[in-house]
Amino acid sequence: MATTMHVPFVLLLCLLCQLGILGFPVSQPPQESLTCGYKSCHATKPGMLNVHLVPHTHDDVGWLKTVDQYFYGDRNHIQHAGVQYILDSVVDQLLKNPDRRFIYVETAFFYRWWKQQSEDVQKTVKQLVNQGRLEFVNGGWCMSDEATTHYSAVIDQMTIGLRFLNDTFGHCGRPRVAWHIDPFGHAREHASMFAQMGYDGFFFGRLDYQDRDHRRAAREQEMLWRASESLTPPVADLFTGILPNGYNPPEGFCWDQLCDDPPIRDDPDLEDYNVDDVVIRFLKIALEQAKVYKTNHIIMTMGSDFQYENANLWYKNLDKLIRYVNQKQGDGSSVNVLYSTPSCYLQEIHRANLTWTVKEDDFFPYADAAHDLWTGYFTSRPALKRYERLSNSYLQTCNQMEVLGGPKSRKGLFGAGDSETLKKAMAVAQHHDAVSGTEKQHVANDYAKGLAKGWAHCQVLVSNALAALSGSSSPRVYCENLNISVCPLTETSNKFSVNVYNPLARPVSWPVRLPVNGTAYSVTDSDGKAVDSQVVPVSQATAALRRDRGYAANELLFQVQAPSLGYSTYSVSLLQTMPPPASPLTRAPRTIQNKFVKVTFDPDTGLLSSLSNLETQQTVRLSQNFYWYNASDGNNNDSNQMSGAYIFRPNSSTPFIISKTAKIETIQNAVVQEVRQWFSPWISQVVRLYADSRALELEWTVGPVPVGDDLGKEVITRLDTSIKSSGIFYTDSNGREVLQRRKDYRPTWNLKQSEPIAGNYYPINSRAYIKDNRDQLTVVTDRSQGGGSIQDGSLEIMLHRRLLYDDVRGVGEPLNETSDLYPEGLVVRGRLLLLLSPPAVAADTHRPLAQGVVLQPLITFTDGKLPPNTRLQFSGLQAMLPPAVHLLTLSQWDQDSVLLRLEHQYEAKESKEHSAPVTVNIQKIFSTLDVLGVSEMNLSANQWKDEMTRLDWKAESGKKPLPKTKGDPSVWEVTLKPMEIRTFLLRVRQS
Amino acid sequence: MATTMHVPFVLLLCLLCQLGILGFPVSQPPQESLTCGYKSCHATKPGMLNVHLVPHTHDDVGWLKTVDQYFYGDRNHIQHAGVQYILDSVVDQLLKNPDRRFIYVETAFFYRWWKQQSEDVQKTVKQLVNQGRLEFVNGGWCMSDEATTHYSAVIDQMTIGLRFLNDTFGHCGRPRVAWHIDPFGHAREHASMFAQMGYDGFFFGRLDYQDRDHRRAAREQEMLWRASESLTPPVADLFTGILPNGYNPPEGFCWDQLCDDPPIRDDPDLEDYNVDDVVIRFLKIALEQAKVYKTNHIIMTMGSDFQYENANLWYKNLDKLIRYVNQKQGDGSSVNVLYSTPSCYLQEIHRANLTWTVKEDDFFPYADAAHDLWTGYFTSRPALKRYERLSNSYLQTCNQMEVLGGPKSRKGLFGAGDSETLKKAMAVAQHHDAVSGTEKQHVANDYAKGLAKGWAHCQVLVSNALAALSGSSSPRVYCENLNISVCPLTETSNKFSVNVYNPLARPVSWPVRLPVNGTAYSVTDSDGKAVDSQVVPVSQATAALRRDRGYAANELLFQVQAPSLGYSTYSVSLLQTMPPPASPLTRAPRTIQNKFVKVTFDPDTGLLSSLSNLETQQTVRLSQNFYWYNASDGNNNDSNQMSGAYIFRPNSSTPFIISKTAKIETIQNAVVQEVRQWFSPWISQVVRLYADSRALELEWTVGPVPVGDDLGKEVITRLDTSIKSSGIFYTDSNGREVLQRRKDYRPTWNLKQSEPIAGNYYPINSRAYIKDNRDQLTVVTDRSQGGGSIQDGSLEIMLHRRLLYDDVRGVGEPLNETSDLYPEGLVVRGRLLLLLSPPAVAADTHRPLAQGVVLQPLITFTDGKLPPNTRLQFSGLQAMLPPAVHLLTLSQWDQDSVLLRLEHQYEAKESKEHSAPVTVNIQKIFSTLDVLGVSEMNLSANQWKDEMTRLDWKAESGKKPLPKTKGDPSVWEVTLKPMEIRTFLLRVRQS
Repeated sequence: MATTMHVPFVLLLCLLCQLGILGFPVSQPPQESLTCGYKSCHATKPGMLNVHLVPHTHDDVGWLKTVDQYFYGDRNHIQHAGVQYILDSVVDQLLKNPDRRFIYVETAFFYRWWKQQSEDVQKTVKQLVNQGRLEFVNGGWCMSDEATTHYSAVIDQMTIGLRFLNDTFGHCGRPRVAWHIDPFGHAREHASMFAQMGYDGFFFGRLDYQDRDHRRAAREQEMLWRASESLTPPVADLFTGILPNGYNPPEGFCWDQLCDDPPIRDDPDLEDYNVDDVVIRFLKIALEQAKVYKTNHIIMTMGSDFQYENANLWYKNLDKLIRYVNQKQGDGSSVNVLYSTPSCYLQEIHRANLTWTVKEDDFFPYADAAHDLWTGYFTSRPALKRYERLSNSYLQTCNQMEVLGGPKSRKGLFGAGDSETLKKAMAVAQHHDAVSGTEKQHVANDYAKGLAKGWAHCQVLVSNALAALSGSSSPRVYCENLNISVCPLTETSNKFSVNVYNPLARPVSWPVRLPVNGTAYSVTDSDGKAVDSQVVPVSQATAALRRDRGYAANELLFQVQAPSLGYSTYSVSLLQTMPPPASPLTRAPRTIQNKFVKVTFDPDTGLLSSLSNLETQQTVRLSQNFYWYNASDGNNNDSNQMSGAYIFRPNSSTPFIISKTAKIETIQNAVVQEVRQWFSPWISQVVRLYADSRALELEWTVGPVPVGDDLGKEVITRLDTSIKSSGIFYTDSNGREVLQRRKDYRPTWNLKQSEPIAGNYYPINSRAYIKDNRDQLTVVTDRSQGGGSIQDGSLEIMLHRRLLYDDVRGVGEPLNETSDLYPEGLVVRGRLLLLLSPPAVAADTHRPLAQGVVLQPLITFTDGKLPPNTRLQFSGLQAMLPPAVHLLTLSQWDQDSVLLRLEHQYEAKESKEHSAPVTVNIQKIFSTLDVLGVSEMNLSANQWKDEMTRLDWKAESGKKPLPKTKGDPSVWEVTLKPMEIRTFLLRVRQS
Repeated sequence: MATTMHVPFVLLLCLLCQLGILGFPVSQPPQESLTCGYKSCHATKPGMLNVHLVPHTHDDVGWLKTVDQYFYGDRNHIQHAGVQYILDSVVDQLLKNPDRRFIYVETAFFYRWWKQQSEDVQKTVKQLVNQGRLEFVNGGWCMSDEATTHYSAVIDQMTIGLRFLNDTFGHCGRPRVAWHIDPFGHAREHASMFAQMGYDGFFFGRLDYQDRDHRRAAREQEMLWRASESLTPPVADLFTGILPNGYNPPEGFCWDQLCDDPPIRDDPDLEDYNVDDVVIRFLKIALEQAKVYKTNHIIMTMGSDFQYENANLWYKNLDKLIRYVNQKQGDGSSVNVLYSTPSCYLQEIHRANLTWTVKEDDFFPYADAAHDLWTGYFTSRPALKRYERLSNSYLQTCNQMEVLGGPKSRKGLFGAGDSETLKKAMAVAQHHDAVSGTEKQHVANDYAKGLAKGWAHCQVLVSNALAALSGSSSPRVYCENLNISVCPLTETSNKFSVNVYNPLARPVSWPVRLPVNGTAYSVTDSDGKAVDSQVVPVSQATAALRRDRGYAANELLFQVQAPSLGYSTYSVSLLQTMPPPASPLTRAPRTIQNKFVKVTFDPDTGLLSSLSNLETQQTVRLSQNFYWYNASDGNNNDSNQMSGAYIFRPNSSTPFIISKTAKIETIQNAVVQEVRQWFSPWISQVVRLYADSRALELEWTVGPVPVGDDLGKEVITRLDTSIKSSGIFYTDSNGREVLQRRKDYRPTWNLKQSEPIAGNYYPINSRAYIKDNRDQLTVVTDRSQGGGSIQDGSLEIMLHRRLLYDDVRGVGEPLNETSDLYPEGLVVRGRLLLLLSPPAVAADTHRPLAQGVVLQPLITFTDGKLPPNTRLQFSGLQAMLPPAVHLLTLSQWDQDSVLLRLEHQYEAKESKEHSAPVTVNIQKIFSTLDVLGVSEMNLSANQWKDEMTRLDWKAESGKKPLPKTKGDPSVWEVTLKPMEIRTFLLRVRQS
């Protein structure tokens, strides 16, 4: 790609090339001389069954040990695993025999290793890569989880991993194959993203056991995944293959130091010569495997978790296996074994020129046995899941600030800041044992620590950037515990200002709640205009969570407005002589409402009883309460599976109710109306309606979940409505497109349902809804959670889990979170935002609402009075973007260029108003940046868009994909179609 | 050595050189250019504490897995260990950094590996050896056990290991250091042999915990071992060092894949940077260790059992350790760390030029804690121990036959035979978990299988040789179960001949017992003279052991005479018409006697009551019976140590008596008198006196030891006499020199005795005795056994052990032997030979008697009548050797030369008659070989004797060793001083 790269647009790209952006090093040999990729594959034998042996290691970016412990091979008593040695060893062994192949996957590890190598080793490795002997597959920073990740974070983590490979190895470092061998179920949005990142195929290991059986019988383990309902095929088409044995070698053929299978003993002078036995066993397995695949090629994954630390064991025996099995061809054997890679295997599958069945749904939920549903991790570690989501918001802000603030943001008034640290921490957190919640406690702590370190680096950057943009050098104060009303500055200061930065490309209105000890404040906006504010007493529930970190008696509430991609500044001053705020009323109101929404309460129980949209004049019955499933402890006739970090298995389908009634306090004022509900000492909720909000907020607080009764508990909230949902509900996929879910049903096979609750749970990344012809109730979440619709009209969401048993999937710990601050068990707080709408227009509200939750404003503080010339308001945009367009990425790429991703945030059919193509002029987006050049990239930004040529696959349906539409009419005018994300590299100059 | 080798004698050695004997390959670079050995050591720093890091692996030649399983890394579920990978990996890693060093020890493994390497790899390895980067230490086929091995087998196994190294690597392959890091106690005879093999020093790891404490306090962990009371110093002086930590790395510094210590994490960008912590911990350990050694050099063994399978882990961290610890020198640290080897360490110790305390006893027994005496393995697996000893006899016969029979012995009438297979099997069997009995059952079976395979190869060779020597092509039949009266040929044949080959250099008389079904036979000797024979009924005890393998009713007894190093042939014919033999009498006689010996029995108990030597007119009271100690099951206040394969720990010092009386049968005839005693269903004995024997034979049969009572049993026989032994008894060391043992006493420290029985047990290899001024009772054993003298006048020998618990020293099995034939428990049969003599002349009898037990005649059969011209008698000697001279080795070395070892078999002071130098003319020994040339070698035959220059060490006593006496007066006249073994390479021609 480097040397043959032509300039897709007429602009300044030659300059970009010279600057070495995208890291295609000039020292690369000409592409023709490289034999990597498909060209480097070993020849196969047409008339034979060709067995592709793929040596590989699966290196979790944290799980039982932290990522750095895995890298160094520290704490081997927990798990024997040391990635530094794996890479050392594999490189040595590849050099011993040019036939050998290896694939490497996790760039987070490879990057650490590469940094420590001598130039000589680096040169050797480059040669191995250029010859296709070492091949990168997948190549993201990690192998992301698919159920609990948000698409924006996945794109980011893939981008930094692939960028490192591109910068380091150029063309030959670009992975051709996506490789998700371990994630616990597979999201359609992931497949869509992989397609748009230019992958030619995708392989994974885990799918529902019934699905697998069905596909084996039907020889449908390889298929074409059509991964978007909006994008025009083949944009989101991805050839997808299911590996034959998870990602493990066939039984009896594991030669790693972690295995005990018999080595090939081929010295006839020694005891136990076993070559004949090995060959016979291998041929049998190969021929059996060939029966459940379509072509005369099969793949065998020769490796597993953290294998190849001593690669000699594997290769020495694989060399012998290949020699002795192929020797049998002289005796008429029709099996041909070879070293291979997933892309070499894929190439042969592609050459077979067959048609493939089309898959249009996803691979959730994942069950590996009748009672073993991996639907618990959709919710496991809810606090970590929220922290990860919040960190994503913070990272996007940090990235934007780095661009808007210019070079001074990285090195400025407050020192050296960077977005790198948080980028990497966020990338690590996408790992399928990170945000998934399936890691050991100490590892979860390490992920959080990494994110916190990233925040700290970003805080310096943001402080620098705000100083540059505002002209004020006042120190910025960050309060990360506003959700529990802790902020030392606001608790003690009589005068301070509040900066609200909005990372969205359109203005937002946002409620601010600040812990204070005064009873009344004057609040003014950027224009000096007074803003309505209220002081209310801190709730008991919140006070209990602070654990001596804060002492505010009250909360100061006001609504702020922040411009597109910019900030506004509010000044707050204590008013000295006011009386304390009124105590809340201790009974539920019949109704709370604003101009958009009305909710009613049952006066007997204190529970919600209805929800109305006042604009559309629709009302549904809505009761909501909290329940817990009793987690199976394994003592069960059907199965001894316990609930654990991965698995959700209630021992009864009927959850226990926490309380039929709630104790109530009510606060109603001009800014907010809230009904505080206590269900038990460990569950409370605030039903809250801000004055200008279309969404009803349910702020839940759950924990410490009591386990003194020796019962593990999986806590849900359930919304029971009058909506006639007919066994159907909807969940999003990685925060983007929405999939329909039907109770006790899977679209591609006849489901035998054996877990009526867990088997109907699906991941909810950002939203779920139920609907009938009239009403759609959408719940927007603030993190990934599991949920289901077990009864018609009902939607339940699992909020928190506390379990007493390990579920025997390797983590080796019960999910029983405690911390120093909460030794009695973790308390988790979060929000559900409820929208009631007619189905046809629901997306018009839930799309922007959900983006606002994902990218929430960053609030910073300065103490005292701001200097006179401070710029109190700023927007980085010339104008807000059209409502359908989301600014997904704005991030500094190198000194002179930035990465921009624009996204059409509506699906093709979900909005009359917004589901139409929309055009943006890139040159006219930014207010402070002159865009000098633009070049479009693939989604992961490791290839020019117009050089992205993927293998084409024939669908069984026979529909030929439409011919690609030609480029945009203008260089600057960019048209986005529904659900399209377009990625650009811009050359910019601060104007 | 190859190219600078000069000819020590004036004969035909130039021819020998040209023939490449001793395998000093001509392609070797000149010695001057080699920097191996002491020249290759890294520089040290004089003013500093120099820490010698010695990377090493300890590769048991069988233990939990068989030697081949260890080699290949098979059965890793038992123990993760694969030697092929260790050597692969170490070679790779040595190449990465020329500073790195490695030592390798066990040639049995190295040889297997070497055979499988490409020429390229072999060339690379030679270079590493020539540069001293890979150094062989010890270098025998295995690391022999010291308690239960016979010196002749140890010399053999060292010879084949060192020969392979010499043949392959020449000069640089010769180990300078003996290295017995794991054996469980140390024999003085081993030290003596090592000294005579040219080693400059010796290191080991295990010694009594009290001894260690004492030596640490006194800084006497390094010493000069004066290992012979007969040989003139410094012939048997050996510098001996005790390693600081067994053979393990210091705590916290094990970086093997089998360890979990934290790696050095030196990337400050990653979490858990720990360089400072590592350096501080290391310096502390080094400085502590230096306090208990004398010089400013200390050694650290960086490795352990089967480590370095992935050598990168070790070396990567050791490289860093050296770098970071030595960096501290800049900050004033006085510790200098370096890669080193035992010989490099030894060189520095030698340069220190200190005087060293002299050690004159041995290091038995070994206790690693107060109640943990490793004295059980002296007896563990008595059947294997006997089979090993018998195999040694067989191997010596096979070796001799190969020389005497000429080339036709290897390829002859009966096919291809060899002595190689049995040589290697015997060498393997010397391993410290082989004949020691401390291996797992399946491994013990494998050792026996290996020996049996060796026997089979030798049988072909012996058949060929006997055919060549006798001129008869009649097939030879071998009966290996004569000890239980099984031999299909003699059981069924009416006419057969018996060939008796005597491997000793003097004639023997030997009783033959053959299973037969006839009642009378005519037996004639080689001259056709009738030989007195008797037929007696097979005892019930023997019949019970056969398990359907034989059906003889009777045994045919006659005494045979066999010439020196030769055979005689007896013809046997059934006499048809005789009545069946008389049934035995069922009472004990008062007395049985021949012309030398008289024994009396107690008529009430049936037990022995006295023993008399009729020649010397001396009599002692002698009662003998069988007892068992109740093996500790670990439930004990003092300690929870159990008896097991290694450990002997009776739970009471008083053994249980089997029976106070014996049931008796008596047989008395002209050939033999025997009293058959039954003590219980599982213990019987035959007290036997052959007509021309000076020794009383006690043939014991023990087993299956019953454990239905859940009590482990350690079965002893005890001889209680009137000898006033005053707390002292004597045991031999590896079958050679005898050491005095005093009850509850150790010569070099004040013993705190905590195990009154086990702490007074010592290894008996071939004999033990008690004595007073008048009487010496010597017991010659047929295998290695443990024994002690707990009461004055008493001598007990442990015969068999059956235990129900593992003793937690790694083997992981209780010593509870069963087999297919003996599923209820192994039955073991053996002999004790008793001699009563005046102490001053006792050796005159027990020395030749014991040699006769070690090298017993080989009896072979041919069916029918022999062809007319068969040579019925043969001797390979011109005349028998003088009584003091033992022909230790006669073995084909290569096509034209043979290895000869002559041994003076008396100690300096033990025999008035024989303890004098004796001279032999080598040219006049053999009757069928012309000796064309002779060159003397060191004991292990890997160096010319006159090139063997060892480092000299100063003893604290200040006695300077005598100057070496110059060579012999004549080339052919060889003088042997007491206990001297001289080793020669002879160029010979069959005459």
